[in-house]
Amino acid sequence: MKLVRFGEAGREKPGLIDTQGQVRDLSGLVPDITGATLSSETLNRIRQTDPASLPAAPSGQRLGACVGQVRNFIAIGLNYADHAAETGAAIPAEPIVFNKAPSCIVGPNDDVIIPRGSQKTDWEVELAIVIGERASYVGANEALEFVAGYCVCNDVSEREFQIERGGTWTKGKGCPTFGPLGPWLVTRDEIPDPQNLSMWLDVNGERMQNGSTKTMIFNVAQIVSYVSHFMILEPGDVITTGTPPGVGMGMKPQRFLKAGDVVSLGIEGLGEQRQRFVAFEGNEVDTSKSWKGH
Amino acid sequence: MKLVRFGEAGREKPGLIDTQGQVRDLSGLVPDITGATLSSETLNRIRQTDPASLPAAPSGQRLGACVGQVRNFIAIGLNYADHAAETGAAIPAEPIVFNKAPSCIVGPNDDVIIPRGSQKTDWEVELAIVIGERASYVGANEALEFVAGYCVCNDVSEREFQIERGGTWTKGKGCPTFGPLGPWLVTRDEIPDPQNLSMWLDVNGERMQNGSTKTMIFNVAQIVSYVSHFMILEPGDVITTGTPPGVGMGMKPQRFLKAGDVVSLGIEGLGEQRQRFVAFEGNEVDTSKSWKGH
Repeated sequence: MKLVRFGEAGREKPGLIDTQGQVRDLSGLVPDITGATLSSETLNRIRQTDPASLPAAPSGQRLGACVGQVRNFIAIGLNYADHAAETGAAIPAEPIVFNKAPSCIVGPNDDVIIPRGSQKTDWEVELAIVIGERASYVGANEALEFVAGYCVCNDVSEREFQIERGGTWTKGKGCPTFGPLGPWLVTRDEIPDPQNLSMWLDVNGERMQNGSTKTMIFNVAQIVSYVSHFMILEPGDVITTGTPPGVGMGMKPQRFLKAGDVVSLGIEGLGEQRQRFVAFEGNEVDTSKSWKGH
Repeated sequence: MKLVRFGEAGREKPGLIDTQGQVRDLSGLVPDITGATLSSETLNRIRQTDPASLPAAPSGQRLGACVGQVRNFIAIGLNYADHAAETGAAIPAEPIVFNKAPSCIVGPNDDVIIPRGSQKTDWEVELAIVIGERASYVGANEALEFVAGYCVCNDVSEREFQIERGGTWTKGKGCPTFGPLGPWLVTRDEIPDPQNLSMWLDVNGERMQNGSTKTMIFNVAQIVSYVSHFMILEPGDVITTGTPPGVGMGMKPQRFLKAGDVVSLGIEGLGEQRQRFVAFEGNEVDTSKSWKGH
C-alpha cells in the first residue's frame, strides 16, 4: 500500500493511493497516519478494505509528510562508501547515528527555507525507514518485521552548522523545513528488497545524485537492529539511512543551494519529491549573535 | 505551580502539588501535562483554579515523568566549566547540542536499567528546561518567555556507547530508562533566577556531585535562544542543560554504576529523584554483534 497524508499543513487527513493513482480518504478507518496506526494489525485492516469503497479526496490536494507526529527522527551518517569518500571521511566501522529535529518535517513538495545566515545548504536523497512496532535489542535477522514501510527523505543539511559550529551534526540537520518525507509511505510488503532500489536527485534539472541502495555500507536490517541496541524504537519513528555520492559539499568547487533553486528527487517504487528553495524572510537582519544576550 | 503526572506508567494523569504537598487531580481541567497544555493561557487557567476544589489523588501513587509526549529531548554537553575540565575536554566556544531518545524518558523514581553489555553507566544531575511556546530564532533577551518551567533530569549516560562507538554521543544517552524527569514541572514564575540553584547527586548515600547552576558556561536564556537558531522548539520539548563536576567518568579511578546502586539527586526548588539501578534481564546472552546479521 501507498499511504499518504493530504490537505493543509497541520490538518492533514490520512489517505491511500489506489491503483489508478487516485488519493482515497482513510479518515473513516484511522484518524491519521502516525505511529499509532502503523501496527501490522491496523495496516492489515486497511489492506482488507476495498479502496473503491473509500471516498476520493478532492484533486490537487497538498501532500503532507507521509507520517505524522514523529518523535524520534534518526539519521545514519556516511552510509554509502562512495559518499564517505567524497566528503573525505573514513568508512565507519559502526553506523554513525545522529538526530534531525522532528519539527523540521514537512511535506514532499513543500518549500524548503534556506536558514537565516546560511551559506552552505545542501541536498541528500535518502531511503527512510518508518518503524511499525516497538523494537528493542532486535537482531538483524528479525529487524525488518519491525518496519512498517519506507519513504523518500531529502536529508537537507547546512554544512557550516553541521560541521563548523562545534559538537555533533545536530545543528545542521534539523533547521525548519529540512525534513521533507514522502510522497508515500510504501508498506514493507511492496518493497521485498530494500537493498536494490535506484535513487536520484536533480538540482534545476541537472542530475547530481545517481545511486542505488545496493551500495549501502550498513543495510536496512542492520541499521534497525543496531539502533535498537542503543534506544527503544517506537512506532512512527523514522530512520533515514544515508546518501549516495553527489552532494554539493563533495563537489570541486563545492556547490550549495540558493533561493529559487528547485530540487527534485526520487527512489524506485517510493515516488518523487520536488522542493523550491526559498530565502528566509528577515534574512537581512543579522541576529546570529543574539543568543549571547547583552 | 508544581505540576506532576501520577499513576501507572503509560496511563499517568495530570496533577498539581498543593501547599500541603498533596497531589491534586487535574484531569477535569486538562487531559495530560504535555506540550498542548503548557501554553501561558492554559497554565493561567490552572493557576486560577483553587487546588482545594480539585480531587485529591490517592496517596502513594507512582510519579511519571513530569511532562508527557516529549518529541525533542535535547541535551547540552560540557556546559559547566569544571565538568569540562574533569572530562579532559576544552571549554566549548558554542553550546554542544545532542539528543536523548524520547523513548528513554521515565518517572523520577523509576528503576533505571543498566543496558545490555554496559560497563560504564554513569550519572549526571541536570537542570532541564521544558518549552511552553513555539520558539524559532528568539533572542536571549526574550528566550525565557518561551519556557514553561523547569525540572530535574538525571542525564544517565553510558560512556563506552557515548564515546567509544563512533559518531555522535547519541548512542550513550538514550538507552531505555536513561531519562528520569521530575518529580515536578515547576513553572517559570516560581524560579525567578534559574542561574542560582544548588544541585547535588548521591550514589548509595555518598555525595558525588555538589554544584550550582551559577557555574553554567551558557545560561538558560542563551541555550534556548541558541538552539532556536538551529531548529524550531515546540511546546513540550525538553532541553537538559549539562552537569556540574563529579560524574563517575571524571574520577580517578573511574567509577560506574552497578546493579543495586541507588542514585538520589535534587535541585533547589525542583525536588528530588531516587533511582534504583537494575541489571538488564537477559544480560548473560551476548547479542552485541547480532546487528551485523548472519
